[in-house]
Amino acid sequence: MAGSSIGELFRVSTFGESHGPAIGAVVDGCPPGLALTEADIQVELDRRRPGQSRHTTQRQEADQVEILSGVFAGVTTGTPIGLLIRNTDQRSQDYSKIKDRFRPGHADYTYLQKFGLRDYRGGGRSSARETATRVAAGAIARKYLRERLGTEIRAWLAQMGPIHAAQFDDAQIDQNPFFCPDAQAALRMAEYLDDLRKAGDSIGARVDVQVTGMPVGLGEPVFDRLEADVAKALMSINAVKAVAIGDGFAVVEQRGSEHGDALTPAGFASNHAGGVLGGISSGQDLRASVAIKPTSSIRIPRPSINLQGEEIEIVTTGRHDPCVGIRAVPIVEAMLAITLMDHYLRHRAQNADVTPPVAPIPRQC
Amino acid sequence: MAGSSIGELFRVSTFGESHGPAIGAVVDGCPPGLALTEADIQVELDRRRPGQSRHTTQRQEADQVEILSGVFAGVTTGTPIGLLIRNTDQRSQDYSKIKDRFRPGHADYTYLQKFGLRDYRGGGRSSARETATRVAAGAIARKYLRERLGTEIRAWLAQMGPIHAAQFDDAQIDQNPFFCPDAQAALRMAEYLDDLRKAGDSIGARVDVQVTGMPVGLGEPVFDRLEADVAKALMSINAVKAVAIGDGFAVVEQRGSEHGDALTPAGFASNHAGGVLGGISSGQDLRASVAIKPTSSIRIPRPSINLQGEEIEIVTTGRHDPCVGIRAVPIVEAMLAITLMDHYLRHRAQNADVTPPVAPIPRQC
Amino acid sequence: MAGSSIGELFRVSTFGESHGPAIGAVVDGCPPGLALTEADIQVELDRRRPGQSRHTTQRQEADQVEILSGVFAGVTTGTPIGLLIRNTDQRSQDYSKIKDRFRPGHADYTYLQKFGLRDYRGGGRSSARETATRVAAGAIARKYLRERLGTEIRAWLAQMGPIHAAQFDDAQIDQNPFFCPDAQAALRMAEYLDDLRKAGDSIGARVDVQVTGMPVGLGEPVFDRLEADVAKALMSINAVKAVAIGDGFAVVEQRGSEHGDALTPAGFASNHAGGVLGGISSGQDLRASVAIKPTSSIRIPRPSINLQGEEIEIVTTGRHDPCVGIRAVPIVEAMLAITLMDHYLRHRAQNADVTPPVAPIPRQC
Amino acid sequence: MAGSSIGELFRVSTFGESHGPAIGAVVDGCPPGLALTEADIQVELDRRRPGQSRHTTQRQEADQVEILSGVFAGVTTGTPIGLLIRNTDQRSQDYSKIKDRFRPGHADYTYLQKFGLRDYRGGGRSSARETATRVAAGAIARKYLRERLGTEIRAWLAQMGPIHAAQFDDAQIDQNPFFCPDAQAALRMAEYLDDLRKAGDSIGARVDVQVTGMPVGLGEPVFDRLEADVAKALMSINAVKAVAIGDGFAVVEQRGSEHGDALTPAGFASNHAGGVLGGISSGQDLRASVAIKPTSSIRIPRPSINLQGEEIEIVTTGRHDPCVGIRAVPIVEAMLAITLMDHYLRHRAQNADVTPPVAPIPRQC
Repeated sequence: MAGSSIGELFRVSTFGESHGPAIGAVVDGCPPGLALTEADIQVELDRRRPGQSRHTTQRQEADQVEILSGVFAGVTTGTPIGLLIRNTDQRSQDYSKIKDRFRPGHADYTYLQKFGLRDYRGGGRSSARETATRVAAGAIARKYLRERLGTEIRAWLAQMGPIHAAQFDDAQIDQNPFFCPDAQAALRMAEYLDDLRKAGDSIGARVDVQVTGMPVGLGEPVFDRLEADVAKALMSINAVKAVAIGDGFAVVEQRGSEHGDALTPAGFASNHAGGVLGGISSGQDLRASVAIKPTSSIRIPRPSINLQGEEIEIVTTGRHDPCVGIRAVPIVEAMLAITLMDHYLRHRAQNADVTPPVAPIPRQC
Repeated sequence: MAGSSIGELFRVSTFGESHGPAIGAVVDGCPPGLALTEADIQVELDRRRPGQSRHTTQRQEADQVEILSGVFAGVTTGTPIGLLIRNTDQRSQDYSKIKDRFRPGHADYTYLQKFGLRDYRGGGRSSARETATRVAAGAIARKYLRERLGTEIRAWLAQMGPIHAAQFDDAQIDQNPFFCPDAQAALRMAEYLDDLRKAGDSIGARVDVQVTGMPVGLGEPVFDRLEADVAKALMSINAVKAVAIGDGFAVVEQRGSEHGDALTPAGFASNHAGGVLGGISSGQDLRASVAIKPTSSIRIPRPSINLQGEEIEIVTTGRHDPCVGIRAVPIVEAMLAITLMDHYLRHRAQNADVTPPVAPIPRQC
Repeated sequence: MAGSSIGELFRVSTFGESHGPAIGAVVDGCPPGLALTEADIQVELDRRRPGQSRHTTQRQEADQVEILSGVFAGVTTGTPIGLLIRNTDQRSQDYSKIKDRFRPGHADYTYLQKFGLRDYRGGGRSSARETATRVAAGAIARKYLRERLGTEIRAWLAQMGPIHAAQFDDAQIDQNPFFCPDAQAALRMAEYLDDLRKAGDSIGARVDVQVTGMPVGLGEPVFDRLEADVAKALMSINAVKAVAIGDGFAVVEQRGSEHGDALTPAGFASNHAGGVLGGISSGQDLRASVAIKPTSSIRIPRPSINLQGEEIEIVTTGRHDPCVGIRAVPIVEAMLAITLMDHYLRHRAQNADVTPPVAPIPRQC
Repeated sequence: MAGSSIGELFRVSTFGESHGPAIGAVVDGCPPGLALTEADIQVELDRRRPGQSRHTTQRQEADQVEILSGVFAGVTTGTPIGLLIRNTDQRSQDYSKIKDRFRPGHADYTYLQKFGLRDYRGGGRSSARETATRVAAGAIARKYLRERLGTEIRAWLAQMGPIHAAQFDDAQIDQNPFFCPDAQAALRMAEYLDDLRKAGDSIGARVDVQVTGMPVGLGEPVFDRLEADVAKALMSINAVKAVAIGDGFAVVEQRGSEHGDALTPAGFASNHAGGVLGGISSGQDLRASVAIKPTSSIRIPRPSINLQGEEIEIVTTGRHDPCVGIRAVPIVEAMLAITLMDHYLRHRAQNADVTPPVAPIPRQC
């Protein structure tokens, strides 16, 4: 299949199923000399970890990462970094009854058609469990970007079903179980989810992300434009159905005189573009949004069919997130980190000896 | 830079600037035995060609394609197909005055920062001119998909600024200069554009696309999910700022009980997913949308800066599309064709000998 | 660095240092439905394992492989196969004294120049220890090739220093500690190595390999010709300095009338080409040879320099193979298996629906 | 097929058949700012061009290159460089009689088996004609390496059949039609070829190559070791059957005490390794050799079979090189240039900010 790698120069290859012995990743291409410990990675994994509030799945995974290679005397060596996370809370018996049935909205049917067989335990490879390896690999990219380039990636839950984050208080994001920058909205989200859980249903969400301290010049037109690779990285996350850069779908109704961000001696006067012009980063903040569908694992009975094509009724009884958008926040950050890191290396490969004839424009907006 | 190739097994590599001698593409990986003539490609290029109505740029490019290799006795041989399109209507003098200036919304600044120099004639590589090579390469993929797999790709202009296509009449799409499936909306679009042209401004648009006759099983989780590669391919098109699959951003407010498409013995009962489950095509129609920003080349004077960082006023006087979304329609089709073709080959590489234990579900919705 | 992956469709990514916690590999792209257990892999690892005779390094590694993913109910699922081998016999203290010194013939100097630092314990990533992961990954490819295509890969020690294998008895290969097809030569090799060990020196070797049951049509000209990818795969093995296909360097003195293998109704009349014509396999046996340099870790004192550029004398006292060519035999087989598997998938991606107009020529020679 | 590209960051994609309208290449990833004209490329093409002496094919190709993109105002812009060479001397009628016949040693049979059809005119894609595009692309890499890094690549004909170059006079290489560094040997080669031509036969050759001014640190272990990618690049050349690095097959009989190049304060004391240690360049001269088979196109009648599998006799009457090794010299240089350029960019992508703790060792040997 060979679809489990991403990045050309900072290449992340992942493996692992929901209910196998372990999941993991190989990170190949990390520059040497970066200080790195398991704790640096663990802190990011802990943000994604399930079971931390009543609002996410009660599956209890330690998600303890082990660095197997690529680090010596506390710094990266430039050789591949092997990362391992053992699965510790698999309950395979939960899944035997769906072995011969297709759950609506799940990958059961498509995996079976594609491969002729499937690991039906907890979604197997299609489970969101694999996203832990993305977060682990992303932690390494993130550390490099922060320490070497001053680049910071910050995502948050901007909307859950009908509830919008109307305020933006960065300090709030890590103060509530929703990564929501609006404390009032977070309270309403909690109530909303309590009701939803009782109803046995689930809900969609929108996650926004912003990158400050962006390097100028990232992106390789015409196909590997920065926004194209960002779109791929974000759309590759489980349950994501749409990706927007800058003003996104709002541009449909914008005029050119309104959309084009004016340049002034003091910097850009606005940021409709979201930090990318012609497929290359301008140094302005990168802004993106993703739409995340409601999880398909719900307790409300749904009509479906079985392997024999017969009509059945299906109820998903496992431990599931009613809003997968919440835990998507650190995953969005990780995928952006991996993408930016890869593009940083690609840019410097070709242009390490370029001296631009003009100084970078201040990042005003 | 090495960012001018897309696809792993059906690999398209393009080259060419707006005002150089020629643009072109190499298509490597096309299966042998496909009947192919220059006319098969020309018909698609003619749909994208500028200057066909008063509503698109008046640049007159013949866009005549020449097949240089890979075809013998009227069929593809399995070797790389070289495609060449000479540039015939370059007016370089139009651009000398913007040589030292940054046009808002353009790639002038980012190319200069990235490469240290830029071909300022008509946007150079960042010009939409390069999309002709995408359409040429896409024509080959499209022909294979249609003839061998019965797969049809159809895009249309769903919205231009405030004007929505409210009706969907497939026959209308090629009857008006907007690829609009709603004849009444097309009339209003014409009026709207006439006013806009007088005002010297431009407008955004939304293009929708639907693929019927989809093969089941395309997509390589976890990173090369079908929707991830579709998102990348579409976001790689000039001026695209957002991509949605299936219900797109509407999923944010959907509940799981509403979103998950039920399976019935007669087929899927709905298609909120847009034809992809778990990153793999289900055989349902693939549905996607893209948002296209208004062109930044407008006649309204805009504040900007020059190479010295001094404040200037800039007016773009070249020949430009007031709504680049119109001509994006065949490009969207081409990029989807390339992506599906590549994934078809990737799928069959791994799974050519798989016999799924269940028959495909009818494609009801 | 991103240089630790090989293959496009059957992609093997490895990680791990000689003295880190573990080494391992991710195999992405294996077709689903292949019966696979840890025992299938272990049997190949055991052939490469050190410490099995007095003639190889006395390092005692269990080299016990664990399958972490990609296999369910005893068969491959089409998702990435994670493989893990713990390092169990690291003696880091052996290496502290060479920390600041460059051993002649080793990668000490080049790793330090490239990365600015190095894991000096036992060669780190440059140690032949990493080849265990190649053998593990290769075992999977080999099983597929054998079971699905009837393709058998067989390597042997054809020469060690001055001693040639003059006889070829396939049954002998696994009967002596040298993988030598000539029992008499094997006896002389044993004596030769005993003397060499006493002298504290090492010796080069030649390994030959033959593949029977070759599929026809593998190889992707013009750059990814079968022999080019075979050459890369074999030259990527530690200590290999030359690769020959078919008659190899002997072709320099051959005439065209002698070299070109005649085709007859009964099959090819000879096999000077080594099974590849125009970069594509002909179905004849693939024949290749590699030259393996003597290990640079010897007990004879050598002049060298230290980090300060001062003259020093160096003696390598670790546990080393006096002839690394011996244990290269299963590694050569593994790399060929990976390469052929990858090319088989690539070939079928493009040509799965091709019906050749002529039947394959019998594989007479 | 997707096998017509080489390089990851300096990526060359070629197309074209012997008797189609044109051949060409796209070079993606060249750093911006390199002064480049068609004359820079033409000078290398002229060295490879046939028909320059009685000793090579009398096909008369102008091999005039046109730069289609990627260069503006005399320097590279960082965007893809399109290169076009029209075919001008195709005589398709020469080939009609071999349409249904398999020529021994040629790719006729394998192309037909692989693709189900073939362009039988002059070998089509399998013709050495495609190597002109390698030389054109290589000229760009070569110019960068020379001007920016002081790296010089020099190949020569070291042996033709029984005749060895016994002297090495660099100035001689371009003074005779054989690229032979030994004037006396060149005279004997001329006589030898005259006899061979009368006999209607062909002969093999060995080409040696040396790179001076090598950057330190190129090569990405474990699979993309420098010598592995060099081996692939050289083995991808038509008719090459073996590749050796440094002492090559001679290492089989060397002892470790003899082979390992000692380091001294004044530099390396020898260069058995050929400039690569542990897969990474040491800064010493890179030394390699290739074996080139005799061309299979000979006038001596050979037994073969036709499409129906019937016995026939075949004579090749086209215009062919009796020793393809001669014109391989500039191709070997081009492939090395492409490979080194790609590895230079890959190295600097990961390690641009590394400061090695020790100064490079002088390149004494």
